[in-house]
Amino acid sequence: MAQISQDLAEELISTAHAMADAAGQAILPFFRSKGLSADNKLSEDFDPVTIADRNAEQAMREVLAQRRPDDAILGEEYGAQGGTSGLTWVLDPIDGTRGFLSGTPTWGTLIAVGDDDGPALGVVDQAYTGERFIGGLGTAEWTGPHGGGALHVRDTRALSDAILFTTFPEVGTPDERAAFDRVAARAKLVRYGMDCYAYVLLATGQIDLVIEAGLQAYDIQGPLAVIEAAGGIVTNWQGGPAHNGGQVIAAANSDIHAAAMALLSDQPQG
Amino acid sequence: MAQISQDLAEELISTAHAMADAAGQAILPFFRSKGLSADNKLSEDFDPVTIADRNAEQAMREVLAQRRPDDAILGEEYGAQGGTSGLTWVLDPIDGTRGFLSGTPTWGTLIAVGDDDGPALGVVDQAYTGERFIGGLGTAEWTGPHGGGALHVRDTRALSDAILFTTFPEVGTPDERAAFDRVAARAKLVRYGMDCYAYVLLATGQIDLVIEAGLQAYDIQGPLAVIEAAGGIVTNWQGGPAHNGGQVIAAANSDIHAAAMALLSDQPQG
Repeated sequence: MAQISQDLAEELISTAHAMADAAGQAILPFFRSKGLSADNKLSEDFDPVTIADRNAEQAMREVLAQRRPDDAILGEEYGAQGGTSGLTWVLDPIDGTRGFLSGTPTWGTLIAVGDDDGPALGVVDQAYTGERFIGGLGTAEWTGPHGGGALHVRDTRALSDAILFTTFPEVGTPDERAAFDRVAARAKLVRYGMDCYAYVLLATGQIDLVIEAGLQAYDIQGPLAVIEAAGGIVTNWQGGPAHNGGQVIAAANSDIHAAAMALLSDQPQG
Repeated sequence: MAQISQDLAEELISTAHAMADAAGQAILPFFRSKGLSADNKLSEDFDPVTIADRNAEQAMREVLAQRRPDDAILGEEYGAQGGTSGLTWVLDPIDGTRGFLSGTPTWGTLIAVGDDDGPALGVVDQAYTGERFIGGLGTAEWTGPHGGGALHVRDTRALSDAILFTTFPEVGTPDERAAFDRVAARAKLVRYGMDCYAYVLLATGQIDLVIEAGLQAYDIQGPLAVIEAAGGIVTNWQGGPAHNGGQVIAAANSDIHAAAMALLSDQPQG
């Protein structure tokens, strides 16, 4: 990541807040509305896209057109748009569309800005509960209806004391599921169904591990920056960078990360 | 259920609101607090009990001592207390303690009042999101931070269009899991991890089915009254009354209920 001045950092943070505000306003009228229609983007793989998803990405792109017209954009709904600043905004207007369509407040708007080395700043916004989590460029904080505070992972050191989350019990391929199950068997508690909300539970010190597979860059860059700012670790299952998606493990600290990684990579001999 | 006058109905509704208020105030200071301790009530089956759980039930019992001293009480934490009015309050101060301990806003305070035939009135309160769902005795409504409205199930008629929820993928015994999986294989979408929040998603017309096993009376009576007031159906897996817990199916309407029941009862020949 190229050096980012304090002035630029403040501008990026303020822009990210404005984008999250705009996305929330675009989405909320459709959340839990009757007769919500959903296209099937991929007929073989249930992935509903709502009007809210598209409207929210357009609203965020309008904020960028006004405030940061030279930055590049990679969005879930409208793809890539080039830029000249060296910075790219990576957007998922509604992460967790299946949760959204089910009425659960576990979806979120994910925003990140960074370069090819990964995000420098990330936001996870939950417009229905009124919670926002932002991390990077010197900030690591959350706000919500009952207050807020500094983001900080917790200090659970043993996997046997850890709370592990993933969104779907099936996780990914059969091999990926088997790897997940090896970790799950050692954890204190395993919970499902939280979409991106699991990552902010990690960043606020509520849980210790999130393991997922099959992610896109826009699924992980916002949470990644938030968790790193909170002191946590996010890598792929091979221990490398996670900002391009794929198999992702997010851990509260190095001990939990190492214990889970050992089990994830413990492939049976073929 | 003995006839309940309109005056008594209003008194019970107002008492239930006061109890939910008291429980929420007792719980919120402990939600997501650092260093939350959890006893293991059952050493072989992870079931944390928090100070919040106990404080909230005591707060609700204090409301009853003042307003309805002649009613009986059955509470998760402090058990049964006799009464002379013929009415019993059934209380679960924090349903979803594992969700609570993980920081997810899917736990709820469950309140019901009724007699041996089941609840006449139920409340599901989610103090963190500020949402309350109340049904029975002529009322069927919800309130929340972005407004509220009438409770009403939705009109999905085919199981293949239905969204199904349960809290744990393992559901219950192997036979119970197999029965659940037969329904899950026919549903449009299956989601996990919502604790009692799944029942209010049904009562607000967001989803179509909740199937669980191993429930206690206090786990289901509040949701049961809310869902019935919303026009839904709650029975056990044999089609009988569900207010004593056990295997529970909650459905948006009779078509979805019948389709799921046929699959639940489709036991392989032994």
